Amino acid sequence: MFQEIPLRNTKITDEFWKPSIDLVRESIIPYQWKILNDLVKDAEPSHCLHNFKVAAREEEGDFMGAVFQDTDVAKWLEAVAYTLEAFPDEELERLADETIALIGRAQQEDGYLDTYFIIKEPEGRFKNLQEGHELYTAGHMIEAAVAYYQATGKDEFLKIVCKTADLLCDTFGPEADQIHGYPGHQEIELALVRLYRVTGRRQYLELAKYFIDIRGVGANYFLEEQKKRGGRGIFPEFSGYDPAYSQSHMPVRDQKTAEGHAVRAVYMYCAMADLALEYGDEALMDACKTLWDNMTGKRMYLTGGIGSSGILERFTTDYDLPNDRNYSETCASIGLALFGSRMARITKDASYMDTVELELYNNILAGIAMDGKSFFYVNPLEVWPDNCMNRTSMEHVKPVRQKWFGVACCPPNIARTLASLGHYIAFREDKRVYVNLYVSAVIDGIPGSLKIESQMPWKGRCEITRGGEGGKEMELALRIPAYAEGFAVTGRDGRPVRWHEETGYAILDEDSGSDPVILTWNMPAAYVWANPMVRADAGRVAIKKGPVVYCLEETDNGANLAGVFADTSQPPAETWEPDLLGGVVSVSVHGKRLAAGALQKKLYAAERPQLEDISLKAVPYARWCNRTPGEMTVWMKELYYV
Amino acid sequence: MFQEIPLRNTKITDEFWKPSIDLVRESIIPYQWKILNDLVKDAEPSHCLHNFKVAAREEEGDFMGAVFQDTDVAKWLEAVAYTLEAFPDEELERLADETIALIGRAQQEDGYLDTYFIIKEPEGRFKNLQEGHELYTAGHMIEAAVAYYQATGKDEFLKIVCKTADLLCDTFGPEADQIHGYPGHQEIELALVRLYRVTGRRQYLELAKYFIDIRGVGANYFLEEQKKRGGRGIFPEFSGYDPAYSQSHMPVRDQKTAEGHAVRAVYMYCAMADLALEYGDEALMDACKTLWDNMTGKRMYLTGGIGSSGILERFTTDYDLPNDRNYSETCASIGLALFGSRMARITKDASYMDTVELELYNNILAGIAMDGKSFFYVNPLEVWPDNCMNRTSMEHVKPVRQKWFGVACCPPNIARTLASLGHYIAFREDKRVYVNLYVSAVIDGIPGSLKIESQMPWKGRCEITRGGEGGKEMELALRIPAYAEGFAVTGRDGRPVRWHEETGYAILDEDSGSDPVILTWNMPAAYVWANPMVRADAGRVAIKKGPVVYCLEETDNGANLAGVFADTSQPPAETWEPDLLGGVVSVSVHGKRLAAGALQKKLYAAERPQLEDISLKAVPYARWCNRTPGEMTVWMKELYYV
Repeated sequence: MFQEIPLRNTKITDEFWKPSIDLVRESIIPYQWKILNDLVKDAEPSHCLHNFKVAAREEEGDFMGAVFQDTDVAKWLEAVAYTLEAFPDEELERLADETIALIGRAQQEDGYLDTYFIIKEPEGRFKNLQEGHELYTAGHMIEAAVAYYQATGKDEFLKIVCKTADLLCDTFGPEADQIHGYPGHQEIELALVRLYRVTGRRQYLELAKYFIDIRGVGANYFLEEQKKRGGRGIFPEFSGYDPAYSQSHMPVRDQKTAEGHAVRAVYMYCAMADLALEYGDEALMDACKTLWDNMTGKRMYLTGGIGSSGILERFTTDYDLPNDRNYSETCASIGLALFGSRMARITKDASYMDTVELELYNNILAGIAMDGKSFFYVNPLEVWPDNCMNRTSMEHVKPVRQKWFGVACCPPNIARTLASLGHYIAFREDKRVYVNLYVSAVIDGIPGSLKIESQMPWKGRCEITRGGEGGKEMELALRIPAYAEGFAVTGRDGRPVRWHEETGYAILDEDSGSDPVILTWNMPAAYVWANPMVRADAGRVAIKKGPVVYCLEETDNGANLAGVFADTSQPPAETWEPDLLGGVVSVSVHGKRLAAGALQKKLYAAERPQLEDISLKAVPYARWCNRTPGEMTVWMKELYYV
Repeated sequence: MFQEIPLRNTKITDEFWKPSIDLVRESIIPYQWKILNDLVKDAEPSHCLHNFKVAAREEEGDFMGAVFQDTDVAKWLEAVAYTLEAFPDEELERLADETIALIGRAQQEDGYLDTYFIIKEPEGRFKNLQEGHELYTAGHMIEAAVAYYQATGKDEFLKIVCKTADLLCDTFGPEADQIHGYPGHQEIELALVRLYRVTGRRQYLELAKYFIDIRGVGANYFLEEQKKRGGRGIFPEFSGYDPAYSQSHMPVRDQKTAEGHAVRAVYMYCAMADLALEYGDEALMDACKTLWDNMTGKRMYLTGGIGSSGILERFTTDYDLPNDRNYSETCASIGLALFGSRMARITKDASYMDTVELELYNNILAGIAMDGKSFFYVNPLEVWPDNCMNRTSMEHVKPVRQKWFGVACCPPNIARTLASLGHYIAFREDKRVYVNLYVSAVIDGIPGSLKIESQMPWKGRCEITRGGEGGKEMELALRIPAYAEGFAVTGRDGRPVRWHEETGYAILDEDSGSDPVILTWNMPAAYVWANPMVRADAGRVAIKKGPVVYCLEETDNGANLAGVFADTSQPPAETWEPDLLGGVVSVSVHGKRLAAGALQKKLYAAERPQLEDISLKAVPYARWCNRTPGEMTVWMKELYYV
């Protein structure tokens, strides 16, 4: 079985990623700490720590915020844990310890830990699993506690969540006196597997399996529950509840298409993959593969976004990928990366990492501004700021990143993802090390060390040096990216190093005498087309360079990007621009644009608009809206030659 | 001032329109009668007459249905009135009389008449103008009563609504003991003008003027009202109320752009036009013109639809005209036709009638199936049935017409519009008769008679014969449609008849010795383009023949209409198809379509999809979805030649 390389052993030195990772430590974590304590003057108060203090009877007041408000604290602690693991910081650890102690004081005698229900509705415990988010919240607490234990070796938080998990093991299960239900928002399942792996207590794994196995079996639990509480609920938008929304429309092993709320879906798929591995459950693994194939093969945007519907942030139907009104939540892409990463580790199939890498370089990274101060929750591929109006069908789309939301799921989720980027770079299985992402880093204690010096994403070149004690015995499995043309491995003398391929990995056949090994491949900026079944992209073309998807911005190309046509008979041209957006390769293409002319005054006319020549400049999608806000489009119309 | 020609004097003989008008009498009115009485087994009960019986203390029970449920009864009576005027029917008149008597018995002593508040919340009267719809309901009652009085000469219903209107005159106004409010959904204003015109009682006109003058002045009435009732309301979607939604964001004379809920907007504009005329209020007329120009020049679909946002059924911003997620409610187009018709009568500018005619032949007529049994509320210009899913951002779009909704505004509104089509054909001012629509009909009692024999909308040819007593003195003003090429008027002997133009009308300079006069013009099916500012239509082309907008349907052209490209270097070809859709001219164009090929299995690839030749067949938009349901598109992509 694969082994994760601890974050403390991975020092990321990458020119592309390091600035973003540093933002977590230098900007996001301190800022979120203020948010949790309601110390940011111009932001909505989060009430987060207030709620814990009230639950601990240390402060007077009511519960405030959303039903899942506690998870902001959990996600902050998880990001802090990953950060502390790589960058020890006494003061930060002290704040975290204090917060954990507060959480412990807020916890009930029996292990229950959810400030909404503790303060507001103690008799309502576990009676509204559809909307209550108690299990979702517990899941985030568990993830944070596991991460904190792994980072610091301190087990206070772990003990707290074990007490909660023990309560859940007592409360939920197949026995007559147990609740035969499952969470309305999945997350607890994957958390329980993590908790099992760190504690070795099998009941946690079994509860995770119970939640997955019972989901969608028989009469729908949430509809029955709704009846019992007379239809009353927390969220008005759930009045006409559709079980597919929470993937409870059928048993999970029977599900063939990615349905419902995208974040719920991918969090569940993560747990399914974990359990398939733990139990050797082939039917569950088959379901994971089927759902992965459907999701990434028919329901995913070029940028990695999932969730085509703004309403209920959900999947719709195959090939339905509208570019302007989609949701493509940053959190959903994070969940998809977590799922893909698990699938790669379990199957040793590198193709899963192509999608994970796509998520990281595009939909996830787009979620955060380059200054770390604002965030996209929704990631459209086409934006016309004028029509992103409140109280309309486009109200979920924001043309600029937002400071910090009331429902602040994405910023802390981005923080924990960036802080744990090391987990995506490589993993090992015995003496073989799988290198998944060509992100510059020094990894030690494998045993042996690995130095990765990459020029990604701008150039297909990476030097890898094995060293240290055990370095010589290390067997390298190097991911061959799907976009890599002419992937080659040579030694420092330029001579080819022999390798063979195993499901997308180049397994080096020689010993480490040739180190550093030098990987090279071509990945010129190139046009990409969508399957003709994707109605929204018909007649359109986009640009991609390796994993990086490009877009046009108004600031470079003027307004009305819908009226722009690329001339694909001419290849795209690359330019390294060190002063643009932190240093990027920009891409130029020739094209045409609609000239206003005769129609300018009329709305409709029998006069054909003329086209005029234009040179288009594209920049990486993840960096859009870091200059003057304006229109943006990933897909350009294409000129056809008849 | 213009005079309306009574419906009883207009016998419509038109081959295109008569079948639809007959549906009202033969199908819609009897069916809706059953609906009002909850006699349709497979339809949701409407509870309409039940509510009146409960209010009259003749039946036990609660109020059921929407807060504006009474208006279904009112609209049914209005359609019945127009129908009876043209086609007397004793049995139908008896049902109407009984219903009116019931309404009278439900009315309160003081004139109050709204079963929701009578039954459910008597103390809530006029306290929630934002949501309560009492004034909207009263408006529809008044319109129905006026129509019924004009049709039958019976004044029982008129007396009922005058009593209501008197109560409103007492309740609302500038005095200290009056409510200084205005309706959340406009309608009462235009109804009060109609009531004034038939009764001569000036207080009704003055109350209409009060409602218009006070709207949007000072602190927003609805926000203040919301505060008073502690934020509680009837509709959860109004929790973050935006005054522009109800056009109360500023005084109406200051409004320059069409904003908010489209039906509310156009009903208000109708009243503004009426009042501008009655009071000679030039500022109000200027506002009408400005709003008309903005709405039809920047915010209207090619098919006449208005309301680009599905959420809150509202206007968005200039040139924002998405084709698939729009609302374009049938009722909004009806209101726009009512507004345009008023503007034409007041200004004697024929161009307003171009838009009214466009509405009738497209967005309004599309609202009803050819068998009169199902209806579109929402009228998209592009439909892919697979993605019109409930609980998603597309849930408001239905790929097939619906039988009868809980909120059944559109079917009875279509019924009253078709039943009163005569009002749109012609009006007179002294001895001059303005012919606005070339719809075959015999109109008498003008004085004199007019026989219109038209070949519209398939051919630009119309014979008009003046006759009867006074026919010789009749002066003809014949609308020159904006789309008419080579508009010519000849006598029966083929010799040109002299005319001069006055704002779009051909005023015949000769006497009636030349009757019948024969009008001819060309209006071949032709390509039409949108202003390049309309992002949704960039790179696209549509087909129009005269007022008739065409569309492609899957049943003629196969699926994936998004991947279809028209070759506009070749002109469209027309074919008269007597057996197609009740007899239509279909239009063929050459083009290409995306071939699946290499991409079929991949979602994205660096391979350019190939194009294959296709011959496309277009049919009138109003007739779409009367055969096998499937995809539809008005705007086709266009092949560009480089």
